[in-house]
Amino acid sequence: MKSYREELWFEVPSRRGFINITPEVERSLSSSGVSEGLCLVNAMHITASVFINDNESGLHADYEKWLEELAPHEPISQYKHNLTGEDNGDAHLKRQVMGREVVVAITEGRLDFGPWEQIFYGEFDGRRKKRVLVKIIGE
Amino acid sequence: MKSYREELWFEVPSRRGFINITPEVERSLSSSGVSEGLCLVNAMHITASVFINDNESGLHADYEKWLEELAPHEPISQYKHNLTGEDNGDAHLKRQVMGREVVVAITEGRLDFGPWEQIFYGEFDGRRKKRVLVKIIGE
Amino acid sequence: MKSYREELWFEVPSRRGFINITPEVERSLSSSGVSEGLCLVNAMHITASVFINDNESGLHADYEKWLEELAPHEPISQYKHNLTGEDNGDAHLKRQVMGREVVVAITEGRLDFGPWEQIFYGEFDGRRKKRVLVKIIGE
Repeated sequence: MKSYREELWFEVPSRRGFINITPEVERSLSSSGVSEGLCLVNAMHITASVFINDNESGLHADYEKWLEELAPHEPISQYKHNLTGEDNGDAHLKRQVMGREVVVAITEGRLDFGPWEQIFYGEFDGRRKKRVLVKIIGE
Repeated sequence: MKSYREELWFEVPSRRGFINITPEVERSLSSSGVSEGLCLVNAMHITASVFINDNESGLHADYEKWLEELAPHEPISQYKHNLTGEDNGDAHLKRQVMGREVVVAITEGRLDFGPWEQIFYGEFDGRRKKRVLVKIIGE
Repeated sequence: MKSYREELWFEVPSRRGFINITPEVERSLSSSGVSEGLCLVNAMHITASVFINDNESGLHADYEKWLEELAPHEPISQYKHNLTGEDNGDAHLKRQVMGREVVVAITEGRLDFGPWEQIFYGEFDGRRKKRVLVKIIGE
Protein backbone atom coordinates (compact mmCIF):
# COMPACT_ATOMS: atom_id res chain seq x y z
CA MET A 1 0.00 0.00 0.00
CA LYS A 2 1.22 3.45 -0.92
CA SER A 3 0.42 6.58 1.05
CA TYR A 4 0.93 10.21 0.14
CA ARG A 5 0.44 13.46 2.08
CA GLU A 6 0.44 17.04 0.93
CA GLU A 7 -0.66 20.33 2.42
CA LEU A 8 -2.22 22.94 0.15
CA TRP A 9 -2.14 26.57 1.32
CA PHE A 10 -4.70 29.20 0.44
CA GLU A 11 -5.31 32.81 1.39
CA VAL A 12 -8.75 34.25 0.70
CA PRO A 13 -8.44 38.06 0.78
CA SER A 14 -11.98 38.59 2.13
CA ARG A 15 -13.77 37.05 5.10
CA ARG A 16 -15.61 34.53 2.95
CA GLY A 17 -15.02 32.97 -0.44
CA PHE A 18 -14.83 29.77 -2.48
CA ILE A 19 -11.80 28.47 -4.40
CA ASN A 20 -11.83 25.62 -6.94
CA ILE A 21 -8.94 23.44 -5.72
CA THR A 22 -9.48 20.54 -8.14
CA PRO A 23 -6.30 21.23 -10.14
CA GLU A 24 -4.18 21.21 -6.97
CA VAL A 25 -5.72 17.92 -5.81
CA GLU A 26 -5.14 16.41 -9.25
CA ARG A 27 -1.49 17.41 -9.02
CA SER A 28 -1.24 15.75 -5.59
CA LEU A 29 -2.77 12.59 -7.03
CA SER A 30 -0.28 12.62 -9.88
CA SER A 31 2.61 13.02 -7.41
CA SER A 32 1.30 10.13 -5.30
CA GLY A 33 1.64 7.54 -8.05
CA VAL A 34 -1.56 5.88 -6.77
CA SER A 35 -3.88 4.46 -9.42
CA GLU A 36 -6.51 2.70 -7.28
CA GLY A 37 -7.48 3.97 -3.83
CA LEU A 38 -9.06 6.76 -1.85
CA CYS A 39 -8.23 10.47 -1.65
CA LEU A 40 -9.17 12.39 1.50
CA VAL A 41 -9.24 16.17 1.20
CA ASN A 42 -10.02 18.07 4.42
CA ALA A 43 -9.82 21.56 5.79
CA MET A 44 -7.22 21.66 8.59
CA HIS A 45 -9.01 24.69 10.06
CA ILE A 46 -12.36 24.60 11.81
CA THR A 47 -13.79 27.73 10.18
CA ALA A 48 -13.38 26.41 6.63
CA SER A 49 -14.85 23.63 4.50
CA VAL A 50 -13.91 21.32 1.69
CA PHE A 51 -16.90 20.28 -0.42
CA ILE A 52 -17.83 19.09 -3.89
CA ASN A 53 -20.33 20.93 -6.01
CA ASP A 54 -20.68 22.97 -9.20
CA ASN A 55 -18.12 25.45 -10.54
CA GLU A 56 -20.73 28.14 -11.18
CA SER A 57 -20.45 31.65 -9.78
CA GLY A 58 -24.21 32.17 -9.39
CA LEU A 59 -24.41 29.08 -7.20
CA HIS A 60 -21.53 30.35 -5.07
CA ALA A 61 -23.41 33.63 -4.58
CA ASP A 62 -26.46 31.56 -3.56
CA TYR A 63 -24.37 29.65 -0.99
CA GLU A 64 -23.03 32.93 0.41
CA LYS A 65 -26.53 34.40 0.83
CA TRP A 66 -28.04 31.18 2.21
CA LEU A 67 -25.28 30.57 4.76
CA GLU A 68 -25.63 34.14 5.98
CA GLU A 69 -29.34 33.49 6.50
CA LEU A 70 -28.71 30.22 8.35
CA ALA A 71 -25.87 31.58 10.53
CA PRO A 72 -25.47 35.38 10.22
CA HIS A 73 -22.10 36.92 10.95
CA GLU A 74 -23.68 39.86 12.80
CA PRO A 75 -24.52 40.78 15.43
CA ILE A 76 -21.30 39.25 16.73
CA SER A 77 -22.73 39.25 20.26
CA GLN A 78 -25.27 36.54 19.35
CA TYR A 79 -22.54 33.86 19.61
CA LYS A 80 -21.10 32.83 22.98
CA HIS A 81 -17.98 31.70 21.16
CA ASN A 82 -17.27 35.36 20.41
CA LEU A 83 -16.97 36.07 24.17
CA THR A 84 -13.50 34.51 23.78
CA GLY A 85 -12.49 37.60 21.78
CA GLU A 86 -13.10 35.96 18.39
CA ASP A 87 -15.61 37.25 15.85
CA ASN A 88 -15.92 34.00 13.90
CA GLY A 89 -18.69 32.15 15.76
CA ASP A 90 -20.77 32.11 12.58
CA ALA A 91 -17.88 30.56 10.62
CA HIS A 92 -17.88 27.46 12.87
CA LEU A 93 -21.59 26.98 12.11
CA LYS A 94 -21.36 27.61 8.37
CA ARG A 95 -18.57 25.07 8.13
CA GLN A 96 -20.84 22.35 9.59
CA VAL A 97 -23.42 22.92 6.84
CA MET A 98 -20.82 22.72 4.07
CA GLY A 99 -18.70 19.98 5.67
CA ARG A 100 -15.06 19.47 6.66
CA GLU A 101 -13.93 16.93 4.10
CA VAL A 102 -14.55 14.92 0.99
CA VAL A 103 -13.39 11.40 0.17
CA VAL A 104 -12.95 10.81 -3.54
CA ALA A 105 -12.43 7.47 -5.26
CA ILE A 106 -9.27 7.05 -7.33
CA THR A 107 -9.69 4.85 -10.40
CA GLU A 108 -7.07 4.30 -13.11
CA GLY A 109 -5.00 7.13 -11.70
CA ARG A 110 -7.77 9.76 -11.82
CA LEU A 111 -10.24 11.36 -9.43
CA ASP A 112 -13.36 9.32 -10.16
CA PHE A 113 -15.84 12.15 -10.65
CA GLY A 114 -19.31 12.54 -12.05
CA PRO A 115 -19.72 15.01 -14.92
CA TRP A 116 -19.89 18.24 -12.87
CA GLU A 117 -18.04 17.40 -9.66
CA GLN A 118 -15.34 19.86 -8.62
CA ILE A 119 -13.64 20.25 -5.23
CA PHE A 120 -13.92 23.60 -3.44
CA TYR A 121 -12.27 25.19 -0.47
CA GLY A 122 -14.91 27.20 1.39
CA GLU A 123 -13.50 29.98 3.54
CA PHE A 124 -15.63 31.56 6.29
CA ASP A 125 -12.92 33.42 8.24
CA GLY A 126 -10.26 34.40 5.75
CA ARG A 127 -7.68 37.13 5.26
CA ARG A 128 -4.90 34.80 6.43
CA LYS A 129 -3.09 31.73 5.12
CA LYS A 130 -4.87 28.47 5.86
CA ARG A 131 -4.31 24.84 4.93
CA VAL A 132 -6.02 21.88 3.30
CA LEU A 133 -4.70 18.35 3.78
CA VAL A 134 -4.61 15.82 0.95
CA LYS A 135 -4.04 12.22 2.05
CA ILE A 136 -4.01 9.46 -0.53
CA ILE A 137 -3.83 5.74 0.10
CA GLY A 138 -3.93 2.91 -2.40
CA GLU A 139 -1.62 1.28 -4.84
CA MET B 1 -4.85 -4.45 -1.44
CA LYS B 2 -8.00 -5.10 -3.45
CA SER B 3 -10.09 -2.37 -5.00
CA TYR B 4 -13.54 -2.54 -6.54
CA ARG B 5 -15.69 -0.02 -8.39
CA GLU B 6 -19.32 -0.08 -9.38
CA GLU B 7 -21.84 2.48 -10.57
CA LEU B 8 -25.43 2.19 -9.41
CA TRP B 9 -28.09 3.90 -11.53
CA PHE B 10 -31.38 5.28 -10.23
CA GLU B 11 -34.27 7.20 -11.68
CA VAL B 12 -36.60 8.95 -9.26
CA PRO B 13 -39.85 9.70 -11.15
CA SER B 14 -40.56 12.91 -9.20
CA ARG B 15 -38.36 15.93 -8.48
CA ARG B 16 -37.44 14.74 -5.00
CA GLY B 17 -37.36 11.37 -3.27
CA PHE B 18 -35.38 8.93 -1.15
CA ILE B 19 -34.35 5.39 -2.13
CA ASN B 20 -32.93 2.77 0.24
CA ILE B 21 -29.85 1.55 -1.65
CA THR B 22 -28.44 -0.69 1.09
CA PRO B 23 -29.18 -3.94 -0.80
CA GLU B 24 -27.34 -2.68 -3.90
CA VAL B 25 -24.31 -1.62 -1.85
CA GLU B 26 -24.30 -5.00 -0.10
CA ARG B 27 -24.26 -6.71 -3.50
CA SER B 28 -21.31 -4.53 -4.55
CA LEU B 29 -19.49 -5.50 -1.37
CA SER B 30 -20.15 -9.17 -2.04
CA SER B 31 -18.81 -8.80 -5.60
CA SER B 32 -15.68 -7.06 -4.32
CA GLY B 33 -14.48 -9.99 -2.24
CA VAL B 34 -13.21 -7.53 0.38
CA SER B 35 -13.61 -8.61 4.01
CA GLU B 36 -11.75 -5.80 5.83
CA GLY B 37 -11.64 -2.26 4.48
CA LEU B 38 -13.61 0.85 3.66
CA CYS B 39 -16.58 1.38 1.36
CA LEU B 40 -17.16 4.83 -0.13
CA VAL B 41 -20.63 5.51 -1.53
CA ASN B 42 -21.11 8.90 -3.17
CA ALA B 43 -23.56 10.68 -5.42
CA MET B 44 -21.88 11.39 -8.76
CA HIS B 45 -24.32 14.27 -9.30
CA ILE B 46 -24.27 17.55 -7.42
CA THR B 47 -28.02 17.80 -6.87
CA ALA B 48 -28.26 14.48 -5.02
CA SER B 49 -27.05 13.03 -1.73
CA VAL B 50 -25.99 9.74 -0.23
CA PHE B 51 -26.64 9.57 3.51
CA ILE B 52 -27.26 7.11 6.31
CA ASN B 53 -30.33 7.30 8.48
CA ASP B 54 -33.56 5.47 9.36
CA ASN B 55 -35.70 3.50 6.91
CA GLU B 56 -38.93 5.12 8.12
CA SER B 57 -41.38 6.86 5.79
CA GLY B 58 -42.52 9.45 8.36
CA LEU B 59 -38.92 10.57 8.80
CA HIS B 60 -38.49 10.88 5.04
CA ALA B 61 -41.60 13.10 4.91
CA ASP B 62 -40.02 15.18 7.72
CA TYR B 63 -36.80 15.56 5.71
CA GLU B 64 -38.78 16.64 2.64
CA LYS B 65 -40.69 19.32 4.60
CA TRP B 66 -37.62 20.52 6.50
CA LEU B 67 -35.38 20.81 3.43
CA GLU B 68 -38.10 22.79 1.64
CA GLU B 69 -38.14 25.18 4.60
CA LEU B 70 -34.34 25.52 4.64
CA ALA B 71 -33.99 25.91 0.85
CA PRO B 72 -37.36 26.30 -0.92
CA HIS B 73 -37.66 25.29 -4.55
CA GLU B 74 -39.81 28.32 -5.37
CA PRO B 75 -39.69 31.10 -6.29
CA ILE B 76 -37.09 29.89 -8.77
CA SER B 77 -35.93 33.50 -9.25
CA GLN B 78 -34.49 33.62 -5.71
CA TYR B 79 -31.41 31.65 -6.84
CA LYS B 80 -28.78 33.22 -9.06
CA HIS B 81 -27.84 29.74 -10.23
CA ASN B 82 -31.20 29.59 -11.99
CA LEU B 83 -30.18 32.52 -14.21
CA THR B 84 -28.18 29.88 -16.12
CA GLY B 85 -31.51 28.44 -17.30
CA GLU B 86 -31.64 25.74 -14.59
CA ASP B 87 -34.42 25.50 -12.02
CA ASN B 88 -32.45 23.39 -9.52
CA GLY B 89 -30.66 26.01 -7.39
CA ASP B 90 -32.43 24.70 -4.30
CA ALA B 91 -31.25 21.16 -5.04
CA HIS B 92 -27.58 22.21 -4.76
CA LEU B 93 -28.31 23.64 -1.29
CA LYS B 94 -30.39 20.71 -0.03
CA ARG B 95 -27.63 18.33 -1.08
CA GLN B 96 -25.13 20.17 1.18
CA VAL B 97 -27.37 19.62 4.23
CA MET B 98 -27.78 15.91 3.53
CA GLY B 99 -24.21 15.30 2.28
CA ARG B 100 -22.53 13.90 -0.81
CA GLU B 101 -21.12 10.65 0.52
CA VAL B 102 -20.80 8.10 3.27
CA VAL B 103 -17.80 5.98 4.20
CA VAL B 104 -18.74 2.68 5.79
CA ALA B 105 -16.42 0.27 7.56
CA ILE B 106 -16.21 -3.27 6.19
CA THR B 107 -15.67 -5.93 8.85
CA GLU B 108 -15.73 -9.70 8.26
CA GLY B 109 -17.16 -9.13 4.80
CA ARG B 110 -20.14 -7.04 5.93
CA LEU B 111 -21.11 -3.36 6.11
CA ASP B 112 -20.31 -2.63 9.76
CA PHE B 113 -23.56 -0.93 10.74
CA GLY B 114 -25.27 0.04 13.95
CA PRO B 115 -28.75 -1.39 14.52
CA TRP B 116 -30.77 1.05 12.37
CA GLU B 117 -28.25 2.32 9.82
CA GLN B 118 -29.37 2.15 6.20
CA ILE B 119 -27.90 3.91 3.15
CA PHE B 120 -30.15 6.24 1.15
CA TYR B 121 -29.93 8.00 -2.16
CA GLY B 122 -31.50 11.43 -1.78
CA GLU B 123 -32.72 12.95 -5.03
CA PHE B 124 -33.43 16.68 -5.26
CA ASP B 125 -33.65 17.08 -9.04
CA GLY B 126 -34.94 13.81 -10.42
CA ARG B 127 -36.97 12.58 -13.38
CA ARG B 128 -33.81 11.36 -15.11
CA LYS B 129 -31.26 8.60 -14.66
CA LYS B 130 -28.46 9.46 -12.22
CA ARG B 131 -25.55 7.59 -10.73
CA VAL B 132 -24.02 6.61 -7.40
CA LEU B 133 -20.41 5.42 -7.18
CA VAL B 134 -19.37 2.57 -4.89
CA LYS B 135 -15.63 2.28 -4.35
CA ILE B 136 -14.29 -0.40 -2.03
CA ILE B 137 -10.71 -0.87 -0.91
CA GLY B 138 -9.30 -3.41 1.50
CA GLU B 139 -8.36 -7.05 1.48
CA MET C 1 -2.62 -3.83 4.86
CA LYS C 2 -3.60 -3.73 8.52
CA SER C 3 -7.13 -3.13 9.74
CA TYR C 4 -8.40 -2.39 13.23
CA ARG C 5 -11.90 -2.03 14.68
CA GLU C 6 -13.06 -0.73 18.02
CA GLU C 7 -16.39 0.37 19.47
CA LEU C 8 -16.44 3.28 21.89
CA TRP C 9 -19.44 3.54 24.23
CA PHE C 10 -20.84 6.77 25.62
CA GLU C 11 -23.81 7.73 27.77
CA VAL C 12 -24.85 11.37 27.76
CA PRO C 13 -27.04 11.94 30.86
CA SER C 14 -29.19 14.62 29.17
CA ARG C 15 -31.06 14.57 25.85
CA ARG C 16 -28.32 16.52 24.06
CA GLY C 17 -24.61 17.06 24.63
CA PHE C 18 -21.14 17.03 23.13
CA ILE C 19 -18.20 14.87 24.25
CA ASN C 20 -14.60 15.31 23.15
CA ILE C 21 -13.63 11.77 22.11
CA THR C 22 -10.19 12.60 20.70
CA PRO C 23 -8.30 10.80 23.49
CA GLU C 24 -10.29 7.59 22.93
CA VAL C 25 -9.67 7.70 19.17
CA GLU C 26 -5.95 8.29 19.78
CA ARG C 27 -5.89 5.22 22.00
CA SER C 28 -7.57 3.19 19.25
CA LEU C 29 -4.97 4.41 16.78
CA SER C 30 -2.18 3.43 19.15
CA SER C 31 -3.70 -0.04 19.56
CA SER C 32 -3.98 -0.44 15.79
CA GLY C 33 -0.27 -0.18 15.13
CA VAL C 34 -1.04 1.73 11.91
CA SER C 35 1.35 4.55 11.01
CA GLU C 36 0.08 5.54 7.54
CA GLY C 37 -3.57 5.25 6.58
CA LEU C 38 -7.11 6.45 7.20
CA CYS C 39 -9.20 6.47 10.36
CA LEU C 40 -13.01 6.41 10.05
CA VAL C 41 -14.97 7.46 13.13
CA ASN C 42 -18.75 7.23 12.83
CA ALA C 43 -21.81 7.28 15.04
CA MET C 44 -23.47 3.85 14.94
CA HIS C 45 -26.77 5.50 15.90
CA ILE C 46 -28.86 7.68 13.62
CA THR C 47 -29.70 10.34 16.21
CA ALA C 48 -26.05 11.16 16.96
CA SER C 49 -23.11 12.73 15.12
CA VAL C 50 -19.35 12.54 14.99
CA PHE C 51 -17.78 15.81 13.87
CA ILE C 52 -14.57 17.81 14.12
CA ASN C 53 -14.53 21.33 15.48
CA ASP C 54 -13.27 23.43 18.36
CA ASN C 55 -13.06 22.30 22.01
CA GLU C 56 -14.70 25.49 23.31
CA SER C 57 -17.76 25.47 25.55
CA GLY C 58 -19.21 28.73 24.21
CA LEU C 59 -19.20 27.26 20.70
CA HIS C 60 -20.96 24.14 21.93
CA ALA C 61 -23.66 26.33 23.50
CA ASP C 62 -23.96 28.11 20.12
CA TYR C 63 -24.40 24.76 18.35
CA GLU C 64 -27.09 23.73 20.84
CA LYS C 65 -29.05 26.97 20.33
CA TRP C 66 -28.62 26.98 16.54
CA LEU C 67 -29.65 23.35 16.06
CA GLU C 68 -32.77 23.97 18.19
CA GLU C 69 -33.63 26.85 15.88
CA LEU C 70 -33.05 24.78 12.73
CA ALA C 71 -34.91 21.69 14.00
CA PRO C 72 -36.75 22.34 17.29
CA HIS C 73 -37.47 19.41 19.59
CA GLU C 74 -40.97 20.70 20.39
CA PRO C 75 -43.76 20.54 19.55
CA ILE C 76 -43.16 16.83 19.14
CA SER C 77 -46.26 16.60 16.92
CA GLN C 78 -44.55 18.58 14.14
CA TYR C 79 -42.60 15.47 13.07
CA LYS C 80 -44.35 12.57 11.35
CA HIS C 81 -41.57 10.33 12.60
CA ASN C 82 -42.91 10.84 16.10
CA LEU C 83 -46.20 9.17 15.09
CA THR C 84 -44.23 5.92 15.49
CA GLY C 85 -44.21 6.57 19.25
CA GLU C 86 -40.74 8.17 19.25
CA ASP C 87 -40.06 11.75 20.37
CA ASN C 88 -36.72 12.09 18.55
CA GLY C 89 -37.73 13.32 15.08
CA ASP C 90 -35.67 16.47 15.64
CA ALA C 91 -32.59 14.40 16.51
CA HIS C 92 -32.58 12.74 13.07
CA LEU C 93 -32.53 16.21 11.47
CA LYS C 94 -29.90 17.73 13.76
CA ARG C 95 -27.62 14.79 13.04
CA GLN C 96 -27.72 15.54 9.30
CA VAL C 97 -26.46 19.09 9.90
CA MET C 98 -23.59 17.93 12.09
CA GLY C 99 -22.79 14.76 10.11
CA ARG C 100 -22.47 11.04 10.77
CA GLU C 101 -18.73 10.54 10.43
CA VAL C 102 -15.26 11.92 10.00
CA VAL C 103 -12.34 10.45 8.11
CA VAL C 104 -8.97 11.49 9.52
CA ALA C 105 -5.59 11.00 7.90
CA ILE C 106 -3.00 8.98 9.83
CA THR C 107 0.58 10.14 9.33
CA GLU C 108 3.62 8.86 11.21
CA GLY C 109 1.34 7.10 13.68
CA ARG C 110 -0.69 10.18 14.62
CA LEU C 111 -4.06 11.71 13.76
CA ASP C 112 -3.01 14.29 11.17
CA PHE C 113 -4.81 17.32 12.57
CA GLY C 114 -4.71 21.05 12.05
CA PRO C 115 -3.99 23.17 15.13
CA TRP C 116 -7.50 23.19 16.67
CA GLU C 117 -9.12 20.04 15.32
CA GLN C 118 -10.73 17.79 17.91
CA ILE C 119 -13.24 14.96 17.39
CA PHE C 120 -16.63 15.21 19.09
CA TYR C 121 -19.51 12.89 19.70
CA GLY C 122 -22.73 14.89 19.30
CA GLU C 123 -25.70 13.39 21.12
CA PHE C 124 -29.25 14.46 20.21
CA ASP C 125 -31.23 11.69 21.94
CA GLY C 126 -29.24 10.62 24.95
CA ARG C 127 -29.86 9.19 28.40
CA ARG C 128 -28.81 5.74 27.21
CA LYS C 129 -25.60 3.99 26.16
CA LYS C 130 -24.71 4.49 22.51
CA ARG C 131 -21.77 3.54 20.30
CA VAL C 132 -19.17 5.07 18.02
CA LEU C 133 -17.22 2.89 15.57
CA VAL C 134 -13.51 3.43 14.92
CA LYS C 135 -12.18 1.64 11.83
CA ILE C 136 -8.56 2.07 10.85
CA ILE C 137 -6.87 0.79 7.72
CA GLY C 138 -3.31 1.29 6.60
CA GLU C 139 0.08 -0.08 7.40
